Amino acid sequence: MKTKSTSLRVRFPVFLFVTQLVIVALYAAFVTYDEHADARFQTNRTNPMDNTVYRYYPVFTDIQFMIFIGFGCLLAFFRFYGFGGMVFNFLTATFAIQWAILVQGYFQFSHEGKIHLGLINLINAEFACAVVLISFGAVLGKTSPLQLLVMALLEVPVFVVTEWAVLKYLKINDAGGSILIHLFACYFGLGVTFVLYRPCLNEGHAKETTSYHSDILSVMGTLFLWVFWPSFNSALTLNGDDQHRAILHTFLGLSASTLTAFALSAMLNKNGKITMADVQNVTLAGGVTVGASVDMMISPAAAYALGVIGCTACMLGYKYLSPFLARRFRIQDQCGIHNLHGLTGLISCAAGICAILMANEEIYGPSLYEIFAHRAPVEGDPKLEELQMLIPGLQPGLGRTAREQALFQVAAVFSTIGVSALGGILTGFVLKLPYLAPPSDDFCFDDELFFDVPPDYDSPLKFNNTITSEDSAA
Amino acid sequence: MKTKSTSLRVRFPVFLFVTQLVIVALYAAFVTYDEHADARFQTNRTNPMDNTVYRYYPVFTDIQFMIFIGFGCLLAFFRFYGFGGMVFNFLTATFAIQWAILVQGYFQFSHEGKIHLGLINLINAEFACAVVLISFGAVLGKTSPLQLLVMALLEVPVFVVTEWAVLKYLKINDAGGSILIHLFACYFGLGVTFVLYRPCLNEGHAKETTSYHSDILSVMGTLFLWVFWPSFNSALTLNGDDQHRAILHTFLGLSASTLTAFALSAMLNKNGKITMADVQNVTLAGGVTVGASVDMMISPAAAYALGVIGCTACMLGYKYLSPFLARRFRIQDQCGIHNLHGLTGLISCAAGICAILMANEEIYGPSLYEIFAHRAPVEGDPKLEELQMLIPGLQPGLGRTAREQALFQVAAVFSTIGVSALGGILTGFVLKLPYLAPPSDDFCFDDELFFDVPPDYDSPLKFNNTITSEDSAA
Amino acid sequence: MKTKSTSLRVRFPVFLFVTQLVIVALYAAFVTYDEHADARFQTNRTNPMDNTVYRYYPVFTDIQFMIFIGFGCLLAFFRFYGFGGMVFNFLTATFAIQWAILVQGYFQFSHEGKIHLGLINLINAEFACAVVLISFGAVLGKTSPLQLLVMALLEVPVFVVTEWAVLKYLKINDAGGSILIHLFACYFGLGVTFVLYRPCLNEGHAKETTSYHSDILSVMGTLFLWVFWPSFNSALTLNGDDQHRAILHTFLGLSASTLTAFALSAMLNKNGKITMADVQNVTLAGGVTVGASVDMMISPAAAYALGVIGCTACMLGYKYLSPFLARRFRIQDQCGIHNLHGLTGLISCAAGICAILMANEEIYGPSLYEIFAHRAPVEGDPKLEELQMLIPGLQPGLGRTAREQALFQVAAVFSTIGVSALGGILTGFVLKLPYLAPPSDDFCFDDELFFDVPPDYDSPLKFNNTITSEDSAA
Repeated sequence: MKTKSTSLRVRFPVFLFVTQLVIVALYAAFVTYDEHADARFQTNRTNPMDNTVYRYYPVFTDIQFMIFIGFGCLLAFFRFYGFGGMVFNFLTATFAIQWAILVQGYFQFSHEGKIHLGLINLINAEFACAVVLISFGAVLGKTSPLQLLVMALLEVPVFVVTEWAVLKYLKINDAGGSILIHLFACYFGLGVTFVLYRPCLNEGHAKETTSYHSDILSVMGTLFLWVFWPSFNSALTLNGDDQHRAILHTFLGLSASTLTAFALSAMLNKNGKITMADVQNVTLAGGVTVGASVDMMISPAAAYALGVIGCTACMLGYKYLSPFLARRFRIQDQCGIHNLHGLTGLISCAAGICAILMANEEIYGPSLYEIFAHRAPVEGDPKLEELQMLIPGLQPGLGRTAREQALFQVAAVFSTIGVSALGGILTGFVLKLPYLAPPSDDFCFDDELFFDVPPDYDSPLKFNNTITSEDSAA
Repeated sequence: MKTKSTSLRVRFPVFLFVTQLVIVALYAAFVTYDEHADARFQTNRTNPMDNTVYRYYPVFTDIQFMIFIGFGCLLAFFRFYGFGGMVFNFLTATFAIQWAILVQGYFQFSHEGKIHLGLINLINAEFACAVVLISFGAVLGKTSPLQLLVMALLEVPVFVVTEWAVLKYLKINDAGGSILIHLFACYFGLGVTFVLYRPCLNEGHAKETTSYHSDILSVMGTLFLWVFWPSFNSALTLNGDDQHRAILHTFLGLSASTLTAFALSAMLNKNGKITMADVQNVTLAGGVTVGASVDMMISPAAAYALGVIGCTACMLGYKYLSPFLARRFRIQDQCGIHNLHGLTGLISCAAGICAILMANEEIYGPSLYEIFAHRAPVEGDPKLEELQMLIPGLQPGLGRTAREQALFQVAAVFSTIGVSALGGILTGFVLKLPYLAPPSDDFCFDDELFFDVPPDYDSPLKFNNTITSEDSAA
Repeated sequence: MKTKSTSLRVRFPVFLFVTQLVIVALYAAFVTYDEHADARFQTNRTNPMDNTVYRYYPVFTDIQFMIFIGFGCLLAFFRFYGFGGMVFNFLTATFAIQWAILVQGYFQFSHEGKIHLGLINLINAEFACAVVLISFGAVLGKTSPLQLLVMALLEVPVFVVTEWAVLKYLKINDAGGSILIHLFACYFGLGVTFVLYRPCLNEGHAKETTSYHSDILSVMGTLFLWVFWPSFNSALTLNGDDQHRAILHTFLGLSASTLTAFALSAMLNKNGKITMADVQNVTLAGGVTVGASVDMMISPAAAYALGVIGCTACMLGYKYLSPFLARRFRIQDQCGIHNLHGLTGLISCAAGICAILMANEEIYGPSLYEIFAHRAPVEGDPKLEELQMLIPGLQPGLGRTAREQALFQVAAVFSTIGVSALGGILTGFVLKLPYLAPPSDDFCFDDELFFDVPPDYDSPLKFNNTITSEDSAA
C-alpha cells in the first residue's frame, strides 16, 4: 500500500534516462577538451609536466573524497536512514556535478560556442555540488531521491547564475566560498524546507534517532571533512603564499573550533557529558568561519579567534535558534545547516570585510594588488606600471579603495541571501508536486521506503515485537 | 571437530614462512635500487625534485588506498564474513605485491641480472595485485586463506608472462588495463570457480546474506574505489594531456554509470526500490568501460556514453547472465566479476578498437605517434625526422596502420582470454588439494572457521535460540 | 551518583577555555608567517610554484589522515568504548598539535623573538602529536578526557625539549623517528600507566571486549595507517633518492611484517585461527622497525628482514611480555605499545646503528655526507671543497667517523628512554589528582561515563535483562 505512492519503478528511471539523454546530447554538441587536455595543442615547446593536471589533481581528489565520502558518512547518522544518507548523497552529488559541468561551463568556460573541459571545471562543478549537498542537509530524511534530483536540477542553475553575476559584476573576494557556497547553500536549503514544512515532525519522530554505529560512522565523516578542508578552502586561491596561508588558516580555524566545541558540548549538557551531534557538526564550524578571509594576511591568531567565535555561534544556534526557527518560522532544518553554514558564513563575511578594510601595502607588500585584484590601478595609471615592475604578471584592476571593495562585499552578501532564499522557496513549491513521491510523515527517516533492506535492518524493534507477542501468546 | 580439517595452525604458517624465506633470499640475491632510489647516482647535476618519486608517489598512495581499503571494504559485504572479506584481501594483496615485484621485475625491470626497484615497480606490482583481487571476487567466502595464497602464487606469474608477451609481441594500447587487467582477472577467476564448483551453493546458503552495517561498509568501499579510480586509469598513461584526458574520461564514465545504475536498479526491482548490491557494484562499471580508450581523443560525450553502455551490460549481467552461468555452466561467480570486469572489459576493448580505427592526425596532431607509439614511422623513414622536429623525444615505431593496430588489439583480447581461462582452470585443480583446507559447504561465508570471533558475532541468531529455549523451558 | 565525580560540566570547559585563551594570546604575541606564507616576501623573482607548500602539503594530508582517522579508528576497537577511542583521539590530537606548534616553534622555528609558521611546523607538530597518541594507547579506556589533555599538556614540552636537545647536541640520524617518536612515546606511556596502576584490571574487565563491528573498524584504522606510513617515514628525509628509498623500505618492511603477523597469529592460536588483535597491531610492526635506517642504503632485502624480525618480536611481546609486565611490574599497557613501538623501536635503533657502521663512500657515493651530515668534513678541510664540487650545496659537518656517529646514536637511545620514562612517571602522578576525574574501575572502557549514548549502546546486555526480567515476571 505505502509503496504504491512512492515506488521508484517508473518515474525515477524516466527522470534519470531523460536527463541523461539530454545531458549526453549537450555534451556531444557543446563540450570539447580544454587546451591542457587536448592532444592537438602539444607542440615541441610543451613541457608535459607544466600541464594544469598536476596543479589541480591532488586538490581534486581531496575534494572528491570530501564530497562523496565525507558528506556521505556525515549524513549517515540516522539509525534507520544510513543507506539514505550515504546513497542519496552519492546519487545527488553525481547528478549535480554532471549538470554543473554544463551550466557552469556555459557561463564560465565557453569560448566560440564550446565548453572547454579540464580538471578546473570539475573542481568548480564540485563546489556547485557542495552547495546542493549542504542544502540537502536541511531536508535529509524527508525527501524522495526524485525530489533531491529535481532540487539539484533547479539549484545548480540558480547557483551558477548567482556566482557568475556576483563575480562578474560585484567582483568580490571570497576564496573559501563563504558567501557564494555556504550562505547560498544555507538560505536555499532553508527556503526549500520552509515550503516543505511538516507540522507533525515538530513533535519529534520515532525514527529520528541515531545508533552507536551510525554515530561512529558520522564522526568518521566529520574527520574526513576536517582533514581535507584545507584543500577545499585553498583550491581556488592564487598559487604560492596565498595558498599556503589558506591551508594554515583553515587548519587553525578548525582546530580552535574543535576544542571550543568540546568545551561547550560538555558545558551545555545537563549531565556534563559530550554530545556526539556536537562532535559531528560543531567541530567543523571553524572551516567555514575562516573562509572569506582565508587567503588574507589576517595573522594566525585571528584565524584561531575566528574558529572560536564561529564555533560558539554555531553551538548556540543548535541549542537555541534551531528549535525556535522550527517552532515559530516553520523552518525545520534537519542537520542544522543554518548553524554550521549560515551563522558561521555571516561571521566569516564580517571578518572578511574587516580584513579588507585593514589591508594595506605595508602588510601585503605589492602583492596586495594580486590578492585584492580589483584594487589594482586601472589600465594607464602610472602606478600600474610601477607595480608591474615588482610583480610582472599583474593585471590592471578597477582602482577600488578598501572601503569600496568592502561595500561590494556587503552587496554580495545581501543579494546572495536574497536570491538563494527566493530560489529555495520556488524550488520548494516544485518539490511539493505529488508526482515526486515525497515520503509520508510516517516513513521519514526510514530506509525501508526506498531500499531493499537486509533482515537485521530494524532487528531491535522486531525483537521487541517478537518478545512481546511470544510473551502475550504465553 | 570441524576445525580439525581447516586449522591454520601448521600448514598456513609453514607456507608463509617458506615463501617468505624464498622471497627474501631472492630479494637479497637479485633486487637492487633503481637509479632514482640509489644514492650513488646523485651527482652535481641531479635535481632532487626531478626524482621520479614525485611523479609516482601521489598515484601510488591512491592505488594503495584502492587495493587495501577500497577492495577491503567492498568485499566485506557479507553479514558473517566481514573479517574474511577485509582481512583476506589484506593478506592476499600483500603477498601478491611482494611476489609480483619479483616476477614482474624479472620480466620488465631487470638489467644485468639485477631487478632495479623503484616506485614504478610497486605501481606495476599493485596492478598485478588488482588482478588477483578481482579473481578473488569470484570465489569469495568459499576458499581458505591458504587457497588464496596459492592462487596468488600461481596467478601472478601467469599474468606477468601474459602481460609481458602481449606488450612485447603484440604491442597494444591498453592504458586503463581493460584487456590485461580486467579481462585477464575475470576469466582467470571464472576458470578457478568453475573447477571449485559446489552444487549445494546453487540452492543458496543461509549465511549468504548481508547486514545493515556490512552493506554500508561495502558502499564505502565502492566510494573509495570511485574516488580514486581516475588515478588507477591514468597511472601508466603518458604525462601531460594524455593523463589529463584519462582523468576526465574516467570521471565522466563513472558518473554516467552511477546514474544509470540507480535508474536500472529501481526499474528492475519488483517493488521499485533501490538494491544495495547494485549501488555497490554496478555504479563502478564505467571505470572499466572507458579503460581501453581512456587516454585517446574520444570526446567527453563518448566517455559518458561508454559509462551508460557498460553499466547497462553489467546490470543485465547481474540480473540474467550470472544465475544462468551458475545453473548451466557451473560457474558460481560470487561477486559477479564477469559482469563488472568481463562484459565491461569486452565493451571497453571494442570501444578502444573503434577509437584506434578513427584516430588520425587531424584529431591528435603529431602527438598521434606518441599515444599510438607503434604507428610512428620506422627508423630511417623521412617522416620520422619531420615528426621529431615537432615532438623532440619521439621514438621510432613500427609504422603500423590504424587497421593493423586494431587487429593486434583483437589478437590480444582473444589470447588474453584464452590464457587466463586456461590458467584459472589449472589453478583451480591445484586449489582442490585437500591439504589447502577448503571450507566445507556449511562453513562457507562464515568467519568463525578461520577467525576468533567476538561474542556478538552471530548475536541475533543466538538470541533466537536463547528465546526459543527459554520459552520452551518455560 | 557515579557521574557526580566525573561530570565534565565545569572543569573540562574551564581547562579548555583557559588553555585556549593562553594559546591564542601566545599566538597573537609570538606567531607570524614564515617567508613562504607571507605576502610581503613575494617579489618579481619569486616563482609561486617553488613555494614549500607544494613540497609539504601532500605529505601533510597523508599524516593528518593517519593521526585523525587512522589512529581514531584503530583505537575504537573496544565494544563499549568506540566513541571514547575515536573522539578522545580527535580531542587530544587537536590539542597536542596546537600546543606543539607553540612549544616546538619556540625551540625550532623562532627568529628574532617570533615563531615563523609554515606547513613544515605543522608537520613537525603532528609528529609531536603522534607521540602523545602512542602514549595514549597505554592508558586507553582508563582515563578521563581531562587527564588526556593534561597528559598532552605535559608530554609535548618534555618531548620537544628532548627532541631539540638530542638533535642539537647529539646530532643523530633518525629519519623515521624510531628513537625520538616511538621510543619516547612508548616509555613515556609506560611511565604514566605504571603510576596509574589499577590492580583490579589485572583480573580482566567485563567491558574489555570487542564487537564484530568494532573489530572491523579497527582493522580499517590499521589499513589507513599501513597505506600512509611511507609518508610518515619519509616526510622529513632529504629530497630525492633518500625519500624514494624511505618509501620503498617502509612498504617492504610493512609488507614483510604483515605476512609474518598472519603466520604467527595462526601458529600461536590454540585453535589455529587468526586473531583480529594481531591483524590490527602486529602487521604494523615493520613500519617502526625500518624507521631508524629508512633513508639509508640498507638494501631492499634488509628492509624485508627488518619487517620479519620486528614483527616477530612484537608478536612475542604481545603473547608473553605484556601479561608478564602487567603482573610483575604493574605496567598495564592497554594497547601493547611496548610491543608495537618499544621492542620494534629498539630493534630499529640497533639496525640503524649497524647501517651507520657499514656506511661508506663505496655504497653511497659522495652523498654519504648528505645523509650522514655530521660525517661531512669540518669547515676548512680540503676534502670538503672536493666534495662540494660533486655536491654543490653540501654543508660542512663535524668530521665524525662512523663509529663516533654510532656511539652518539646509542647515547640518544639511552637518554631518550631515561627522560621519557621519568617524564611519564611524573606526569602519571599529576594525572592522579582526583580533580581530573579519572573513571572508577567499574566505568573503565565505558562510553556511558563521558558521552550521551544512543539507546542501542548496550542493547544485547539490556535485552538479556529484559528477557530475564520478563521471564521472572512471568
